[in-house]
Amino acid sequence: MVSREVYDLVRECAERSKAAARKLAIASETAKNAALERIAESLLARQAEILAANSIDMENGRAKGLSSALLDRLLLTPERIAAMAEGVREVMALPDPVGEITELKPRPSGIKVGKMRVPLGVIGIIYEARPNVTVDAAALCLKAGNSVLLRGGSEAFNSNTKLAQILSEALMAAGLPNDAVQLIPTTDRASIKAMATLDDLIDVLIARGGESLMSALAGATVPLFKHGKGICHTYIDLDADLAKAIEIAFNAKVSRPGVCNAMETLLVHREIAPRVLPELGRRLQEAGVELVGDETVQQLIPGTGAATEEDWATEYLALKLAIRVVDSFAEAVEHIQRYGSQHSEAIVTENYATALRFLEQVDAAAVFVNASTRFNDGGQFGLGAEIGISTQKLHARGPMGIRELTTTKFVVFGNGEVR
Amino acid sequence: MVSREVYDLVRECAERSKAAARKLAIASETAKNAALERIAESLLARQAEILAANSIDMENGRAKGLSSALLDRLLLTPERIAAMAEGVREVMALPDPVGEITELKPRPSGIKVGKMRVPLGVIGIIYEARPNVTVDAAALCLKAGNSVLLRGGSEAFNSNTKLAQILSEALMAAGLPNDAVQLIPTTDRASIKAMATLDDLIDVLIARGGESLMSALAGATVPLFKHGKGICHTYIDLDADLAKAIEIAFNAKVSRPGVCNAMETLLVHREIAPRVLPELGRRLQEAGVELVGDETVQQLIPGTGAATEEDWATEYLALKLAIRVVDSFAEAVEHIQRYGSQHSEAIVTENYATALRFLEQVDAAAVFVNASTRFNDGGQFGLGAEIGISTQKLHARGPMGIRELTTTKFVVFGNGEVR
Repeated sequence: MVSREVYDLVRECAERSKAAARKLAIASETAKNAALERIAESLLARQAEILAANSIDMENGRAKGLSSALLDRLLLTPERIAAMAEGVREVMALPDPVGEITELKPRPSGIKVGKMRVPLGVIGIIYEARPNVTVDAAALCLKAGNSVLLRGGSEAFNSNTKLAQILSEALMAAGLPNDAVQLIPTTDRASIKAMATLDDLIDVLIARGGESLMSALAGATVPLFKHGKGICHTYIDLDADLAKAIEIAFNAKVSRPGVCNAMETLLVHREIAPRVLPELGRRLQEAGVELVGDETVQQLIPGTGAATEEDWATEYLALKLAIRVVDSFAEAVEHIQRYGSQHSEAIVTENYATALRFLEQVDAAAVFVNASTRFNDGGQFGLGAEIGISTQKLHARGPMGIRELTTTKFVVFGNGEVR
Repeated sequence: MVSREVYDLVRECAERSKAAARKLAIASETAKNAALERIAESLLARQAEILAANSIDMENGRAKGLSSALLDRLLLTPERIAAMAEGVREVMALPDPVGEITELKPRPSGIKVGKMRVPLGVIGIIYEARPNVTVDAAALCLKAGNSVLLRGGSEAFNSNTKLAQILSEALMAAGLPNDAVQLIPTTDRASIKAMATLDDLIDVLIARGGESLMSALAGATVPLFKHGKGICHTYIDLDADLAKAIEIAFNAKVSRPGVCNAMETLLVHREIAPRVLPELGRRLQEAGVELVGDETVQQLIPGTGAATEEDWATEYLALKLAIRVVDSFAEAVEHIQRYGSQHSEAIVTENYATALRFLEQVDAAAVFVNASTRFNDGGQFGLGAEIGISTQKLHARGPMGIRELTTTKFVVFGNGEVR
C-alpha cells in the first residue's frame, strides 16, 4: 500500500502542477520560448551549482558501488551541461503545435466544427539515472504547453533537485508559473504508485526504465506512454540486392547495438542464403558479433552457435545476433509476428509486390523497405526532438515528438443553432 | 480473483480474435463491404430467429422483474431489426480509412518516411442491455479492419448470441474469417476481468455501462476507451444575444434530457440575469423542468429551489437544471473547470474576444460558441456513425468515429540507406 504521507506529498505537488498547467496552456509561443531561452542561459550560468550537486551524487554512487557504466550515465560535465542547454534551444526552435485549428468545416445544421490542438495538461515523468532527462523531457513538455511532474532516480537526486530548481526559477523569471516544473521531493518507492493513481490530476505518465519500474506501474490508473523493448528483425528476401542486404543488416546490428532499434534477429530466404550469409557472417564476426543460428546457418557461417527457442525472443542489446533461414516470405512474416515486439521491422528486396506486402502485413511501430531499422528515431523521421519511441498503438506509435504531447478538442462556431 | 475456467475460455476466444484480426487487417474495402452487405441481408432474412431469441430474453426479463424502461431497451421488433440493418449499410457507405499513407516525405538521409493508417487489431466491447450495440459496434469495428470480441449483458444473452452467430456466419459466407466477430459465451462477471487483463491479445476495450462496470474494470491492463459522464454547462455572457441565449439554453436542457450532451448547469452573468432568467425560467418550467439555483436565481424565477453544493456536481439526466449567477467571465470558467466533466461546454456571447477566450480557456471534449451542447455527436460533427463520445484526452477525444478505431504505423521507403 501507498504510505499516506508520501501519497499526500505527491498529491499536493500534482495539484500545484494542475493549477500551473491551466496558465501554461494559454501561454503564447513567445512567452514559452522566452522561458526556454532563460532555462538555457541559467543552465550555463549556474554550471558550478549543478556540478557541485552532481559531485555529491557521484560520491554517493561510488560509495554505493555503482558500476562504472551507471556512474558514467550519472556524471555531468561542463560539456554535458552545454549539450543540455543546446537541447533546450533545439526544442525552442520547434514550431508550437498548440492552438492550431484544423478540419474546420461547416455542417448542414449551420454550425462550423473544427479541432483545436491543445496541451495534454500535466505530464508525469518517471525515469532513472540520467539527469539530462530532467532537462530534455521538461523542455519538450513545456514547449507543448504542459506542466511536468518529475520523479527521478535516487542516484541522481541531488543533481535533479538542482536542475529542477533552475528550471522552475527560470520559468518564474520569464513570467510563467514556477510550479510548471516540479521534482517530487522524495525517491520513496511509494511515490511512483502515488503518481500512477492520481488520474484526476495527472493526464499521462511517461515511464523510462526497466522491468522493475514497469511492474511498479502495474495497476496504474493514469494512462502510460510505454517504451517497449525492441526485438527487431531484418528479412533478406529472395529478390534482395546482395550489396544492400549486407550493408543494411550489418548497420542494423553493429552501428549501435545497445539501442532499441538495433536488429536482434536476421531472417534470410533459403534460396539467397548461400550467396549472402558467408560474406555477411564474416563481416559480422570481424566486427565482434557473436552469431547463433539454425542448422543451415551453422553450415554456411563457420563458428556460428546453435540458436535456441529463447534466442528468437531475446533482446540482446549487445554484439550478438540470431539468424534463421526461412523457406518463404510467409514464414518470415510469421516469425516476425510471433517473436517481434512491434518496434522496427525491415525487409530487403527489389521486388515491388513483395515490398508492398511487407509494409501491409507487418504490424509494428515502423516498417522499413531497403533501409536500416536504426532509422527509427524522431530526428531521422523529421519530428525534431523526441520523448521516446512508443510501441503501443493508442495515441502515439513510434517516435513521439512534441505533437504527441498534445491532444485536440472539438471547437464549434455557431450563430444560435439548436438541435 | 478471476476464476480459472472463465479466464481460459475468454483467452481462447481472444486468441481466435487475434488470428482473425491479422486476416481482416489486409482485407480489401470491397471484401469488407461485401461482408457488411451480407450482414445487413442476413439480419433481415433471419428476423424470425432473432425475434425468437429475443422473446426468451424478454420472458426472462419480465420474470426477473426488470423495469419497463429496461425491458424496452431489451426489446427487438421488426422495425428495430430493420434499423440495425440500415445502420450496417450506413457504416458500409463510410470511406475505409485503412491503408492511407499520409505525410510521406523525403528525409536528408535519403529515406522516405510516411504514416500508414492501420486497424487497431482486436477490439473488446463490454456493454449492457441493448442488443443493437452488438450489430452497430461490430459493423463499425469491422469496416475499420478490426476483430470484435463482444461481452454483452446477461439480460440480452440469447439475443446477442443469435446476432453474433448471424454476423459470424455472414462473414464466413463473404470469405472473411468468422472469428472476427465473437460473443464471449458466458456472462460470468469474471469474464470482464479476464478481458481487461488480456493485453497481449486485446488492443483496446470499449466499455459502455455505468459505475459498476467501470469499477469492475479498475486495474485493467488493456487500454480503455471511456465514456465519461456529461456535466455540461451553458454560460450566458454579459454580451449575449437574448433570443439566442434562450433558444440555446432551452434546447440544451429540454430536447433530450437523458443523454450525456444535455446541459446540467446554466451559468448567467449577473448583469444580464434580470433580462434573461425570468423568461427562460418560465419556458423551462412550462416544459416541466425542475429548477434549483442560488439566491439571485430564486428571486428572478419564482418556484426555483435552493441549489446545494451537490447540485453543481450532479449529472441529472432528467428534466432538472441547476442555475447559478456569476459576477464575471472568469468566475464562469472557474466554475466549469471545478465542476465540469470535460464533455460539452457552451458560451452564448456576441463579443468576439470573449468567444475566443472561452474556446481557448475551457478544457473539454467539445467547446461551443452560440450553439447547443446537444450538437456533440458524431453524426452532427460529420464523422458518420460513432462508437461513443470519449471524455479522455489520449488517442480519441469527443465523438469517436471509424478513424478512431484505427492507428498508424510509420512506413519507410529506402534504397539501401544505412545510418
